[in-house]
Amino acid sequence: MTDTCPVDLTANLIRCPSVTPEEGGALELLAGVLGDAGFECTRVDRNGTPNLFARWGAKGAAKSLGFNGHTDVVPVGDVADWTVDPFGAEIKGPNMYGRGACDMKSGVAAFAAAAVDFVQTQKPDGAVILTITGDEEGPARDGTVALLDWMDAQGERMTDCLVGEPTCPNEMGEMIKIGRRGSLTAKFTIIGQQGHVAYPHRAKTPMAPMVRLMDRLASHTLDEGTDHFDPSTLQITTIDTGNAATNVIPNQVKSTVNIRFNDAHTGDSLIAWMRAEADKVAKEFGVEVQMTTNISGDSFVTEPGAFSQMIVSAVQAVTGKTPELSTSGGTSDARFVKNHCPVVECGLVGTSMHQVDEYVVVEQIRQLKDIYTRILTDYFA
Amino acid sequence: MTDTCPVDLTANLIRCPSVTPEEGGALELLAGVLGDAGFECTRVDRNGTPNLFARWGAKGAAKSLGFNGHTDVVPVGDVADWTVDPFGAEIKGPNMYGRGACDMKSGVAAFAAAAVDFVQTQKPDGAVILTITGDEEGPARDGTVALLDWMDAQGERMTDCLVGEPTCPNEMGEMIKIGRRGSLTAKFTIIGQQGHVAYPHRAKTPMAPMVRLMDRLASHTLDEGTDHFDPSTLQITTIDTGNAATNVIPNQVKSTVNIRFNDAHTGDSLIAWMRAEADKVAKEFGVEVQMTTNISGDSFVTEPGAFSQMIVSAVQAVTGKTPELSTSGGTSDARFVKNHCPVVECGLVGTSMHQVDEYVVVEQIRQLKDIYTRILTDYFA
Ligand SMILES: [Zn+2]
Ligand SMILES: [Zn+2]
Repeated sequence: MTDTCPVDLTANLIRCPSVTPEEGGALELLAGVLGDAGFECTRVDRNGTPNLFARWGAKGAAKSLGFNGHTDVVPVGDVADWTVDPFGAEIKGPNMYGRGACDMKSGVAAFAAAAVDFVQTQKPDGAVILTITGDEEGPARDGTVALLDWMDAQGERMTDCLVGEPTCPNEMGEMIKIGRRGSLTAKFTIIGQQGHVAYPHRAKTPMAPMVRLMDRLASHTLDEGTDHFDPSTLQITTIDTGNAATNVIPNQVKSTVNIRFNDAHTGDSLIAWMRAEADKVAKEFGVEVQMTTNISGDSFVTEPGAFSQMIVSAVQAVTGKTPELSTSGGTSDARFVKNHCPVVECGLVGTSMHQVDEYVVVEQIRQLKDIYTRILTDYFA
Repeated sequence: MTDTCPVDLTANLIRCPSVTPEEGGALELLAGVLGDAGFECTRVDRNGTPNLFARWGAKGAAKSLGFNGHTDVVPVGDVADWTVDPFGAEIKGPNMYGRGACDMKSGVAAFAAAAVDFVQTQKPDGAVILTITGDEEGPARDGTVALLDWMDAQGERMTDCLVGEPTCPNEMGEMIKIGRRGSLTAKFTIIGQQGHVAYPHRAKTPMAPMVRLMDRLASHTLDEGTDHFDPSTLQITTIDTGNAATNVIPNQVKSTVNIRFNDAHTGDSLIAWMRAEADKVAKEFGVEVQMTTNISGDSFVTEPGAFSQMIVSAVQAVTGKTPELSTSGGTSDARFVKNHCPVVECGLVGTSMHQVDEYVVVEQIRQLKDIYTRILTDYFA
């Protein structure tokens, strides 16, 4: 009977310097562990981005539970700010320290360890599939997307998928995520006509229309929230003119707005709304309002059901807590996986992710492996 | 009988490279010409800023007509953009070219030539006083202000004063200025709390309150104009955040507002209004709104009367046009002189001031001398 230690595996992964887009040995380490346990491992690199696909069991099995995660980590920043070696995996008291300790080498180690032990001891009637990318923190164009594209082409299929990102705001077991809000960025440029402040009739200010437009966008209530989502929010992230002369009306001003939106909207419906508001202001002030937009992801939700209930039960059994089914927070690769199969995210406490002295509570790595093991057991029961 | 040529004097002044704060020989040239004509000349320099005071006639005379002007000029900019030597005073066709040709070496030359000829031929019963500074284009802290301070200390007095700045928008004789709007600059900083756009409840954006405040200020009708003034105007000149991260709510944003205001307001009344609006927004959004202000000058007007009528008549006689009595445009040293005595501005066409290939129409320098000569004649009649 195998008993793979997820703590040792986390430590070994932390020691791989896999800052995006470097593979750093992390995927190869996993391929070794998984391969030894009978997983069929395939590197699915695209445009230099390293990715690992691993399947135990038959391709196309009726029950094919997937796990998704990433081994890449954000940069260390100024190493002098750290009190530990960012790639040392040092254990001090209850914690293990290092870049990726929390986001999300511990999560990957926990599901890899659970999967390895489960398939070897239980020989389930189905398949266990791991998709692990080396680019979730970067542009993410050739990461999980490349894995899913490749799977489609190969006829590989997950019936459900669990993403191992940190999902708990403060305490282990308090939250899983069944969807995410969408994210949309819009950049505005208003072009007026430069002139002297003493002669505004000879100029055309871009400033007054910009503050009017921004006030209208920022003060609009997008919605009151939906069944599974908090209300959508719009934030002005920057407005910039760069005019140092207090006696000059500038000829242009730029701004950026970011919207995190729920399933009451789509990226396209929000773009149409902003364009209409921009057109109104353009007409009111007689200026040109340019707008460019980028939809990072539309909102999505995996409706609560048998799969999410299985995860809730596993979390309850291991931690004694009933996790909230949330759709809060930033984006993750679940936004890609949801196009392939139902997806839920369940992982550790995320407080230290991307920070100096990033750490994970060692005991919680073991808890997370136990949670994943229970999910595997229930899924194939 | 003397017949001082204002065109030659303009050319000689242009050849003095008197870019603020350089004296460049301009004031010394004038001191020579005026001294030769019997003017008592005194350099009234303060903190390195050169100024010239010249009086013909008795100190404290019942009729003491003053002229005010400046010999400093704004920088040339890129000399390669000029088609002529900026300090060459070249005449091409009807125009003389050079930095200061329009603003305002021609004006100074015209009133100096008029004054020199007038006092020598007419020996008026009174005094003619010229106050000429070498810093009107710069900070102007030790220019005309220093001259007026010195005059106060010395018991020197002008009964009325004529400022020779360009006052005509397009055609010679079409406008004189009997006052100026005030100018006030306010800089705002709103301090919020930085955070991730996905978690706005953990942050406090400074952006929404800033656009609300700016929209309220910019859309407010300050007044509908007064007897001698156009409506006051408020312009937002810049808003700056400098936040390149589209997923971050910034912690602060800055803006600058400039108000050109008439005699319906004072700088202080406008500051009180803006502070009240800022406080409202601060309360509505729970942020801190900082405001710093600078009053460049309050508005002022020399009520139309005998003095302005004398100038109107002179302009009519020389140009055939009836000048408008305006209070439009930017600030000038008249804002300081008005604290000493009634002041009116009457000068050339200002279209090319501060520009590349600045020029003056040669014939109009002669017209301006004629206008000033008539005013001198009528004033002492
Ligand atoms: Zn992550
Ligand atoms: Zn000037």
